Amino acid sequence: VTAAENCPPELVDLAHSMADAAGTVARRYFRTPIAVDTKPDSSPVTIADREAEAAMRTLIAARAPAHGIYGEEMGAARTDAEYVWVLDPIDGTKAFITGKPSFGILIALLHRGIPVLGIIDQPILRERWLGAAGRPSTLNGAPARVRACAALDKAVLYATSPDMFKGADAAAWETIRRKAGLVRYGADCYAYGLLASGFVDLVIEASLQPYDYCALAPVITGAGGVMTDWHGTALGLASPGQVVAAGDARMHASALAALTGARPASG
Amino acid sequence: VTAAENCPPELVDLAHSMADAAGTVARRYFRTPIAVDTKPDSSPVTIADREAEAAMRTLIAARAPAHGIYGEEMGAARTDAEYVWVLDPIDGTKAFITGKPSFGILIALLHRGIPVLGIIDQPILRERWLGAAGRPSTLNGAPARVRACAALDKAVLYATSPDMFKGADAAAWETIRRKAGLVRYGADCYAYGLLASGFVDLVIEASLQPYDYCALAPVITGAGGVMTDWHGTALGLASPGQVVAAGDARMHASALAALTGARPASG
Repeated sequence: VTAAENCPPELVDLAHSMADAAGTVARRYFRTPIAVDTKPDSSPVTIADREAEAAMRTLIAARAPAHGIYGEEMGAARTDAEYVWVLDPIDGTKAFITGKPSFGILIALLHRGIPVLGIIDQPILRERWLGAAGRPSTLNGAPARVRACAALDKAVLYATSPDMFKGADAAAWETIRRKAGLVRYGADCYAYGLLASGFVDLVIEASLQPYDYCALAPVITGAGGVMTDWHGTALGLASPGQVVAAGDARMHASALAALTGARPASG
Repeated sequence: VTAAENCPPELVDLAHSMADAAGTVARRYFRTPIAVDTKPDSSPVTIADREAEAAMRTLIAARAPAHGIYGEEMGAARTDAEYVWVLDPIDGTKAFITGKPSFGILIALLHRGIPVLGIIDQPILRERWLGAAGRPSTLNGAPARVRACAALDKAVLYATSPDMFKGADAAAWETIRRKAGLVRYGADCYAYGLLASGFVDLVIEASLQPYDYCALAPVITGAGGVMTDWHGTALGLASPGQVVAAGDARMHASALAALTGARPASG
């Protein structure tokens, strides 16, 4: 049995401990007056992001020192290792700094490049989605399951912001949002949790980094959904950053067709 | 002392009871499989909206039978009364039906047409902002206070969706969102609570109904902020549905100038 078939339980335990530690940091700083720095890519970062990532790295160093790490705030180490942790200590820092509890702690574990574990944790609402190869996804320990919805014009579609779609991506987004039944913005990673639990049918985003999306795929897959890049390719560290998650495989196929059809042949 | 100077305490108590009752209904139906009907204006409505409004109306009938009511789901009665309650049992029904706890119960009390009390209640997070004439606004009983921020290019700006700006409003929105420091979507009425608590500097919306905005003004004002329509006029039942709320009066003035400057002379 490989990790892609069954994620080792001790690594699931480690991931829970990491989410616990990062959540403690996030709760301590949420809605307190902390400085907001601007990173070279103009995205904001705070002491909460840095301390939460440090807390997770400390646990990896203690319990799985040979594993690689790819973290948003503190860089990459040993990414050629058999196991690599991909960490976003606070996904949705913009929501975090405005006091809105839709941000999340994202923890992914890759085995030979394939995401085999994902956690989406909202530490203020204390909601944690877990997806791990070989077991059904859960929300706070109870089964999380997608809902069926095949028709795009009935779909609830989420994206964090229309501003995340640049260049040709904007035209593709415009095409699909006009076909969707209901379009909502502003949920950050929380939208993927809602999809895994059967309240949302489709999440389409772009301009993402590996630490933004790697944790989401195992949660969606283990809940019965499908998540790939816009070309239908499985997600990994080298993916292009455009993702589509659907609760229903037929919806996923329709979304891919709509996204691809809207893009120029050179795209 | 008039109600515009001091909202009578027994009416504040009644408003709390109404929010409690509506919250009980909302929690009972949140994330359960309920039917979603479509209203003539194509907005969604559920049994939770209707039961929550009915619960509030029952309390008004029992404790203030002479008061008028203007409710989203069950219509208007006695709107020429000295006191009129303006009710949105679930503001953000689209968020509600997708399992996202950013919706809110909105309760306003108008005295001779002027909003003298407002409640923004998020029943899942159990957060309640209260604004009442003659007293400081509160979040769960503790003082809520806006923050100072005069410069538009430093402002955190929220709107529920860019799709709410139609026609000339869209051009005005585009102008101001380009000037803002950080733009976020998707918070519904919760954004105004965040502004009252000093985490957001500006909320600009359009296409609103009286039950969407009347409850917000007393919360913002009592927290030290300013909220009017896009022309700087105080809000009431006959307002045009375009609102601007700011934590800092200088920000409010800048926003009005930016919004007005962007609109055609005929607008």
